[in-house]
Amino acid sequence: MAAKLASSRYGKGEVKVKKVTRHKDYHELIDFAVSVYCEGDFTDAHLKGDNSAVLPTDTQRNTIYILAKDHPLDSIESFGIFLSDHLLKANTQFTSVQVEIAQNIWERIPVNGKKHPTTYRKAGQEQWLTAVHRTHDSLAVQSGIRDLEILKTTDSGFSDFKVDDFTTLKDTDDRVLNTVLKSIWPYKSTDVDFAKERQTIQTTLLDAFAGHKSLSVQHTLYAMGEQVLAKTKAIDSISLEMPNVHNLLFDLSRFNRENKSEIFHVTEEPYGIITGVVSR
Amino acid sequence: MAAKLASSRYGKGEVKVKKVTRHKDYHELIDFAVSVYCEGDFTDAHLKGDNSAVLPTDTQRNTIYILAKDHPLDSIESFGIFLSDHLLKANTQFTSVQVEIAQNIWERIPVNGKKHPTTYRKAGQEQWLTAVHRTHDSLAVQSGIRDLEILKTTDSGFSDFKVDDFTTLKDTDDRVLNTVLKSIWPYKSTDVDFAKERQTIQTTLLDAFAGHKSLSVQHTLYAMGEQVLAKTKAIDSISLEMPNVHNLLFDLSRFNRENKSEIFHVTEEPYGIITGVVSR
Amino acid sequence: MAAKLASSRYGKGEVKVKKVTRHKDYHELIDFAVSVYCEGDFTDAHLKGDNSAVLPTDTQRNTIYILAKDHPLDSIESFGIFLSDHLLKANTQFTSVQVEIAQNIWERIPVNGKKHPTTYRKAGQEQWLTAVHRTHDSLAVQSGIRDLEILKTTDSGFSDFKVDDFTTLKDTDDRVLNTVLKSIWPYKSTDVDFAKERQTIQTTLLDAFAGHKSLSVQHTLYAMGEQVLAKTKAIDSISLEMPNVHNLLFDLSRFNRENKSEIFHVTEEPYGIITGVVSR
Amino acid sequence: MAAKLASSRYGKGEVKVKKVTRHKDYHELIDFAVSVYCEGDFTDAHLKGDNSAVLPTDTQRNTIYILAKDHPLDSIESFGIFLSDHLLKANTQFTSVQVEIAQNIWERIPVNGKKHPTTYRKAGQEQWLTAVHRTHDSLAVQSGIRDLEILKTTDSGFSDFKVDDFTTLKDTDDRVLNTVLKSIWPYKSTDVDFAKERQTIQTTLLDAFAGHKSLSVQHTLYAMGEQVLAKTKAIDSISLEMPNVHNLLFDLSRFNRENKSEIFHVTEEPYGIITGVVSR
Repeated sequence: MAAKLASSRYGKGEVKVKKVTRHKDYHELIDFAVSVYCEGDFTDAHLKGDNSAVLPTDTQRNTIYILAKDHPLDSIESFGIFLSDHLLKANTQFTSVQVEIAQNIWERIPVNGKKHPTTYRKAGQEQWLTAVHRTHDSLAVQSGIRDLEILKTTDSGFSDFKVDDFTTLKDTDDRVLNTVLKSIWPYKSTDVDFAKERQTIQTTLLDAFAGHKSLSVQHTLYAMGEQVLAKTKAIDSISLEMPNVHNLLFDLSRFNRENKSEIFHVTEEPYGIITGVVSR
Repeated sequence: MAAKLASSRYGKGEVKVKKVTRHKDYHELIDFAVSVYCEGDFTDAHLKGDNSAVLPTDTQRNTIYILAKDHPLDSIESFGIFLSDHLLKANTQFTSVQVEIAQNIWERIPVNGKKHPTTYRKAGQEQWLTAVHRTHDSLAVQSGIRDLEILKTTDSGFSDFKVDDFTTLKDTDDRVLNTVLKSIWPYKSTDVDFAKERQTIQTTLLDAFAGHKSLSVQHTLYAMGEQVLAKTKAIDSISLEMPNVHNLLFDLSRFNRENKSEIFHVTEEPYGIITGVVSR
Repeated sequence: MAAKLASSRYGKGEVKVKKVTRHKDYHELIDFAVSVYCEGDFTDAHLKGDNSAVLPTDTQRNTIYILAKDHPLDSIESFGIFLSDHLLKANTQFTSVQVEIAQNIWERIPVNGKKHPTTYRKAGQEQWLTAVHRTHDSLAVQSGIRDLEILKTTDSGFSDFKVDDFTTLKDTDDRVLNTVLKSIWPYKSTDVDFAKERQTIQTTLLDAFAGHKSLSVQHTLYAMGEQVLAKTKAIDSISLEMPNVHNLLFDLSRFNRENKSEIFHVTEEPYGIITGVVSR
Repeated sequence: MAAKLASSRYGKGEVKVKKVTRHKDYHELIDFAVSVYCEGDFTDAHLKGDNSAVLPTDTQRNTIYILAKDHPLDSIESFGIFLSDHLLKANTQFTSVQVEIAQNIWERIPVNGKKHPTTYRKAGQEQWLTAVHRTHDSLAVQSGIRDLEILKTTDSGFSDFKVDDFTTLKDTDDRVLNTVLKSIWPYKSTDVDFAKERQTIQTTLLDAFAGHKSLSVQHTLYAMGEQVLAKTKAIDSISLEMPNVHNLLFDLSRFNRENKSEIFHVTEEPYGIITGVVSR
């Protein structure tokens, strides 16, 4: 049986851009990395080495910087829409283009109680995400956040779980709950105020996490998704990944001391995998 | 509209195991990390905090170490089958279990021309992979490799590609081709000599890469997949990810020197994304 | 010539501790990693395998968790002093103990405009540092910060530098200045309000960075050190490492566009190495 | 008291070079990263922003690529000597130059039992190191290796150590010994066959590790250093860092199984810190 090309995808990964917009009173800084994935019929490139349908990934890199100049960059979502539109229109040999963007967050440094107009510090480890998928007759945008590390020192337990011969875990009604949140939400339409929706969703995720009386990570994950869906009409579902980063009580009883949920040792691996999608 | 749980998955990530089998004349060392993902109806856990269907991920961790003792560990594939079988039989509330294993490769250190029986060194950066997916009436195994960095100093070009207004890349008929290979191959059946098949596939991937006159990364990717399919009947398709790690000629002409494909600077980001699936 | 042990040092690295202090109205969270280095005459351990003078590193780990319980942990500096005191007194065979601590910074999540009492997010990538070095008759404390990424979008130039045959860089009077600051400051005495001094020094570093008209990274580094020394009497010198993270103008002139310090591409490697010590 | 510049150092970090030497029958590939550190009187640069004595780090980067073309690159040590010589002679304002090089190791892929002439794979995680320090009247070279992960499955114990109130560790006469070796050796002279010496030293380190009946990591570290000094006259001392990577017996007795040094769980942090210098 002869071989054939079942599918293929190519593009450019991790094109890092900073754009500085020089307003009169202050500067805006936007810092992001773009990856582009293109699909189409690339059979001749793969089987014959015929590159005539292959737009070089180097050109894709140039295109990202050029369009970053041409676009106001009010949001990574609108830039992703703009970039995918250009790439697909200029390349009818592509059947689809996916643009993925991860934004780093900077904040202006406070000096004497006021934000300095042109000086910044990295604000955290989290990244804001978007993925724009476009074909010649469809357009879909989803957004998200990752690497947002959050922690509750109380209102978290885990008990009455299934027990088998290999179970050694004990019930607990007060533990530290620590996770590194990743969440993705597909927009129902692209006619959305992306910045405002992101603000609403991210604030709600944190509020829900803070306020929840957690009986398990699953329990809190659901509550977070549910509250987001109650706050916005722009999405119909949200996925959450909330790895359970284990902070374990150090056994001080061996040393004549009591550990009343005070001293924890941290083990980054292994970790609990907890994921779910909440929808209407 | 009320919220509901659309889907969920949980388990344990990165459980690191070393097993030493103490033969009379030498020791065997197998070093691997296991992640387990369980699916089922966990609505009550998410909505009510009812954990009665939730086997703790800590128990899953215990189970991995216990079964690593009970199993000969002749291959990560056979261990994945054994572990998924145990977990699914012991937990009828699960609808599926996925076991993912990544193996680190060690080699016995040569001393005076002979392999030392009990001393090892890490053999490389690459990891051998398997993923076993099991439901109550199905079983699927796929295997793979990742982080295998390979390079050709000749027989690689890229020319006659599509040019647009944003293209600055020049044709080249002799460049360095450098990639970090990831490949995944699903087995048609689980009645396979996994170790022998892996050996055949990995050797063929390298042979094909070495022997190919490359007109593009896509061209070489396809040739590698095609040659693997010609060498084994155990699989019907293979996916390959071959990021194009750019080694660029440093422009020495500015300094009265010629650079005949000799001096390269390396940029790890951005990189070309090149992926494809070759099938029968 | 026979071999001898010229020097040796041993201890425990990266012992990760979280301590939660449960006040009535809110919880305090302190998150840090401790490394301990012990020196002494360990000749018999090395030459004969006589471990009688070797306190196991596992015991050192236990000691860190036990003393974290016994100590208020008002600062990592005071904990380092407490821990080094215990280790050296309990181990007269040690000639010195060095304790190094790196603290992760968490902030309480704002909910409805008020800090939630028991819920936290990671505040950034930077870590606060201390190193306490103690012998039987001396004690020295230095503190610092690392991985603090900061950036100026203007007031930074680099020109009139030395030029030779291999120079291609052009003068610039307006570039992005981007660095990942590491700074270390040795305290003159240990009778110091460590938390207050850290606050003063860190604020001054940022203020000086923001306010400086930079003619080079070296120029700004010196200004930062100078201003810190003017603000506190607790230290007599400060070292700064300010790698120059290159954000380069993307050449848009090739595409009929002007780039007025607006669009930058980022290259993380190579980077400029800029370090200095400013003292009185 | 006025501030002053106590010391400073600047240069370029992580300049990544690949050089391909195209012999008739095969190609040679050398892959390395260079960092350069320059010292001198840079007071005016720091205090006044006067850059006239500052050779741009960008020029240093150019110089590395240009000299990589001009030099045979038979060893990273000889290239470091060549590069430091150029930099110091061309810049009399420098008082010293330090060149640090880390080499990645590639091996030619075997095809049908023979090494392919022009195709390579990364050979492991370890890097070969050198540091060349030069002033206007001195030259010193040291070399080394790092990230060499090695492991013994037997002939390793740790017992009869010091016990205190906080000790819970038990004696063991058979454990897994696992470390990630870093070693540095200063050469007595620069009139040395660097490639041959490296070969001798690295082989001896592995042979000694394999052959040793270890009573502690310290014990093995010393034996390795001692055997190296017995094998070569080119060095008078060698430093070794051998972190104790803990592979701990998983307690299977809770599950009616015996663990005869067979099943280990791995914890990467914390780890034992074990360092020493062996000299004549």
